[in-house]
Amino acid sequence: MSDDRMSSVVRPGPDAAVTLRPLAGARVEGGFWGARQRVNREVTIPLGGERVRESGAFDNLRLAGPHRGKVFADSDVYKWLEALAWERGRADDDDLARPYKEASELVAAAQCDDGYLHTHTQLTGAGRYSDLASSHELYCAGHLMQAAVAGSRAVGDRTLLGVATRFADHLAAALAPHALDGHPEVEMGLAELHRETGTRAYLDLAARQVTARGHALIPLKGHHGPGYRQDRVPVREAVTVEGHAVRAMYLAAGAADVAVETSDLELLAALERQWQDMVATKTYLTGGLGSNWYGEAFGGHHELAPDTAYCETCAAIGSVQWSWRMLLATGAPGFADLIERTLYNAVLPGVSLGGDRFFYVNALRVRAGADPDDLRSPARGRQDWYGTACCPPNVMRLLSSLDHYLATGDGDGVQLHLYAPGTVRAGFVVLEVATGYPWSGRIEITVRETPDRPWTLSARIPAWADAAGVDDRPAEPGTYHRVRRTWRPGDRIVLDLGIRPRLTVAVPRLDVARGQVAVERGPLVYCLEQADHPGVIVDDLCVAGADLRDGTAVTGLPAEVVPVIARGRAHVHREEDGGFPYRTAAAPREPEHAGPVDLTFVPYYAWANRGAGPMTVWAPMHG
Amino acid sequence: MSDDRMSSVVRPGPDAAVTLRPLAGARVEGGFWGARQRVNREVTIPLGGERVRESGAFDNLRLAGPHRGKVFADSDVYKWLEALAWERGRADDDDLARPYKEASELVAAAQCDDGYLHTHTQLTGAGRYSDLASSHELYCAGHLMQAAVAGSRAVGDRTLLGVATRFADHLAAALAPHALDGHPEVEMGLAELHRETGTRAYLDLAARQVTARGHALIPLKGHHGPGYRQDRVPVREAVTVEGHAVRAMYLAAGAADVAVETSDLELLAALERQWQDMVATKTYLTGGLGSNWYGEAFGGHHELAPDTAYCETCAAIGSVQWSWRMLLATGAPGFADLIERTLYNAVLPGVSLGGDRFFYVNALRVRAGADPDDLRSPARGRQDWYGTACCPPNVMRLLSSLDHYLATGDGDGVQLHLYAPGTVRAGFVVLEVATGYPWSGRIEITVRETPDRPWTLSARIPAWADAAGVDDRPAEPGTYHRVRRTWRPGDRIVLDLGIRPRLTVAVPRLDVARGQVAVERGPLVYCLEQADHPGVIVDDLCVAGADLRDGTAVTGLPAEVVPVIARGRAHVHREEDGGFPYRTAAAPREPEHAGPVDLTFVPYYAWANRGAGPMTVWAPMHG
Repeated sequence: MSDDRMSSVVRPGPDAAVTLRPLAGARVEGGFWGARQRVNREVTIPLGGERVRESGAFDNLRLAGPHRGKVFADSDVYKWLEALAWERGRADDDDLARPYKEASELVAAAQCDDGYLHTHTQLTGAGRYSDLASSHELYCAGHLMQAAVAGSRAVGDRTLLGVATRFADHLAAALAPHALDGHPEVEMGLAELHRETGTRAYLDLAARQVTARGHALIPLKGHHGPGYRQDRVPVREAVTVEGHAVRAMYLAAGAADVAVETSDLELLAALERQWQDMVATKTYLTGGLGSNWYGEAFGGHHELAPDTAYCETCAAIGSVQWSWRMLLATGAPGFADLIERTLYNAVLPGVSLGGDRFFYVNALRVRAGADPDDLRSPARGRQDWYGTACCPPNVMRLLSSLDHYLATGDGDGVQLHLYAPGTVRAGFVVLEVATGYPWSGRIEITVRETPDRPWTLSARIPAWADAAGVDDRPAEPGTYHRVRRTWRPGDRIVLDLGIRPRLTVAVPRLDVARGQVAVERGPLVYCLEQADHPGVIVDDLCVAGADLRDGTAVTGLPAEVVPVIARGRAHVHREEDGGFPYRTAAAPREPEHAGPVDLTFVPYYAWANRGAGPMTVWAPMHG
Repeated sequence: MSDDRMSSVVRPGPDAAVTLRPLAGARVEGGFWGARQRVNREVTIPLGGERVRESGAFDNLRLAGPHRGKVFADSDVYKWLEALAWERGRADDDDLARPYKEASELVAAAQCDDGYLHTHTQLTGAGRYSDLASSHELYCAGHLMQAAVAGSRAVGDRTLLGVATRFADHLAAALAPHALDGHPEVEMGLAELHRETGTRAYLDLAARQVTARGHALIPLKGHHGPGYRQDRVPVREAVTVEGHAVRAMYLAAGAADVAVETSDLELLAALERQWQDMVATKTYLTGGLGSNWYGEAFGGHHELAPDTAYCETCAAIGSVQWSWRMLLATGAPGFADLIERTLYNAVLPGVSLGGDRFFYVNALRVRAGADPDDLRSPARGRQDWYGTACCPPNVMRLLSSLDHYLATGDGDGVQLHLYAPGTVRAGFVVLEVATGYPWSGRIEITVRETPDRPWTLSARIPAWADAAGVDDRPAEPGTYHRVRRTWRPGDRIVLDLGIRPRLTVAVPRLDVARGQVAVERGPLVYCLEQADHPGVIVDDLCVAGADLRDGTAVTGLPAEVVPVIARGRAHVHREEDGGFPYRTAAAPREPEHAGPVDLTFVPYYAWANRGAGPMTVWAPMHG
């Protein structure tokens, strides 16, 4: 079951090799995500327009010069426009429509007569496509195309669609066969523009970008090898993800689009292999991606240090984009599991609860004495904006299009992937979902409208939900629970995902987590934050027992936040520990511990909303 | 007791506020370091000349243009010349003297009439001192000065000394008051040039460089904050080291020179405070410095991940330079302890046993599946050379000047800091040292010549030597064992430092080492290397007992290398460990272990001489 008026952020073509199809008619109405979307609409998006204006990106589009900001400053405007478009699709009003119109007309006016558009090149006189390894010309084009598709699908505004198609036509004609952007992104944009317009040349160009990559044709710059720009191994041959994490995710997502549109099952299998390797060896507990500040990049297998983690907010968003495409292609629940984990624990931490401050880097540990020099250092807390402002508008467009990720349809029914109160419309089916998720694991799904024939309602049972039940019968974690019947209006099924706090450990090869535990509760990863532990620094805390319990409200956090309480102890940091920190084990000296303390774990996404300070997701397990 | 003909690499002036004074007459003769010096002389230095030639750095000095290599390519020549000079001082021959003469004459001919010299600026026409944050003009000048001093002291060659003084005179006159190089180094060079020539203006300029720093006056470039270039906090106020580790070490060493020459005890105290903090919270077990590839930089307190460690070879050399100056200033044994640890375990790994391949980055763990993209990745093994070739010639000059670090004198006697077979001359005293150190802890010190009056022979007892004795009586680790008497020729004392393998653990705050142990033996840090463990990957090995024993020869390593054997086990990496690597602890599942295996630990400095592969300094302790 699907919806022809699909306004979804991803919309596979009619012949695409997909198992599931997105729905236009899924809506978040209140609850956890509804609150985040309201803040996004009322605070973050307006603030984003202001920050983009201050950065000079609108002035760049006026071609007034000199160019301000980074070479990719145009993309900040495009991502923000995409957020506005999806948000207008949810509920239009003049406060959104007016800035959308102004900015999209600015974009249109900046376009060259032949379709080219990249204000940095236009204002500096740099040669077109002369430095694609760094210039981000195609990267910006890709974001323009995604924004254009959003405007067209969400509100039928074709201003940007015209700009994007003229640019894409120019690219299809002008781009040298092996011209590759150092930063993938145009692949997704071209594929979606093809889906929106039916122009095959756009898909062909996207496919060319995917195929040409991996032959070390992109000129090297700086110290980085070809892997940094995903140009070391062809996508079709790669067995893992590598290099700059955002680039790797955008490339993989675009390659997935190409694979399903061209029914290239070999390419799809290669992507699934890379995804599995990423999940098994290069993914943080939060779903965050990218171990290294250097190159903003993946590390090697099991290289997942919590403190030096980069986990760029954009990489998490790219991961959601890739996993969503793989989910549509395959219908396998693991993709949806990672999407959920990533949304709650790697995307959402990128914006403050108030919606006005942002993390670029999402480390899993911040120590006392963390280095504060870099503006992106998590020890400094979220910032108002960044000189490289890719992350904030990326969060905006994801939150404003979040509804698209709730559910899908296929020939046999409806699949629910994420849980939020709201309505799901799929053809003749209308479902109503009521839930206090993620705080509660109870999810009531009521059939409001249904055709008079059997169909299957599928509901994802997350892999962590080992006590899940549906209508009081056990359900298998890591699957879709499927109920096939002829439904009647008013029929209801009740999921109970059995949410309770749990301790999590890592496999032995993940050496940075050896001897340590993390706390999770439902889809949420928790952390210890300094604000809840006065008189002792978080670095010295350890968990002293496996019994966890839900706490009550946490001072300074919204009342709905459920903390988790554990028994703990604090290492005593002794005077002699202040010298050389290594000593002979022959004279064993167990760490001294102060008396028992209650540890308060709070959801990781909510950290650093009460000032920045030491924090950790992993804590040592005591005795 | 000191030596007026001091040819030492550091030579405090007569009024300097130092406790100890270097000796010219300490000579390594054979043994562990003698072998390394022979390889350095016969293989590494000649090869270095060839590589420098290939890099275009000599052509740059011919001013033929266009400029080749990095902006700091001149410094490769200077460091190599410094190595040649010290090596000629040890034993001159035509194979060293001829290339020294050719290259130093090339340098002299390249100098501008007004004394300026920086081939990148000269060949590109870039403005002098217009981009000091990046240009490395003063950095290169500092290396030129050190090379010039070496030539003058070691062999009385004043060619480069003339060039260096003309450049320094120019700098003293031309440099704007707050002009600071992004990369410290000129401070050490100016201070030593002052010591060599007596020209006060050079010391004044060095002092100005130290004082002006830390006020965020250096223009920011790229993402880095001012801390990257040590420009966030004035040296006098800093409580820790931060930013680019090599820059931090060179600045601190130069500041120590300024402090002792100007009797600035406040500055010296600030440096000692920073050194203590570095040792307690930012130093790897190997002595390596710099946790982060990003910025080649220190991290925060206790941020010492073994796998992502940068530990640049140059940073270790800078650490030796700083600690040596602090040792001269204070006479405190901790400085010598760190020098020894660093030389064996952080400098020496930077060059292969054959002397012809180099590590830039010295990580403490390399996993199976480490990312190979960057040429510096330890997973790729040592390389023939690097595009940024700072490390190889830095190792060369350190090894060729290593004799200078063996011993010092003061008004009351002689202090032995490092142990190697050889001769120590200090005024009327001549000592002969015989030892198989570091393989054996037995050190025989025989007085060959002595004045007929009492003086004190001091011998460092390393902090790890908890079973040390002198002439069969216990000696206190972490001190200088002092024997004061009227010595007679033929008198001998025998140290036994009680070298045996030992397990080492870290303080609790050092979370990356929790539950793990390392193996050390004497001054050497050991590691597990893939080459010695066929059939299992190093990542899966753990130590299963505290009893260690010396092994016999290791296949593929020189016969004198003593391996350490430990009981161990290997984690069984199960099929299901190949998925998402995090799982609920509620169903506890101890890692399975295969039957007991012997673990072979080899000295860390010797790793990657039998091919590169997985390696670890830290291993989990089983049960």
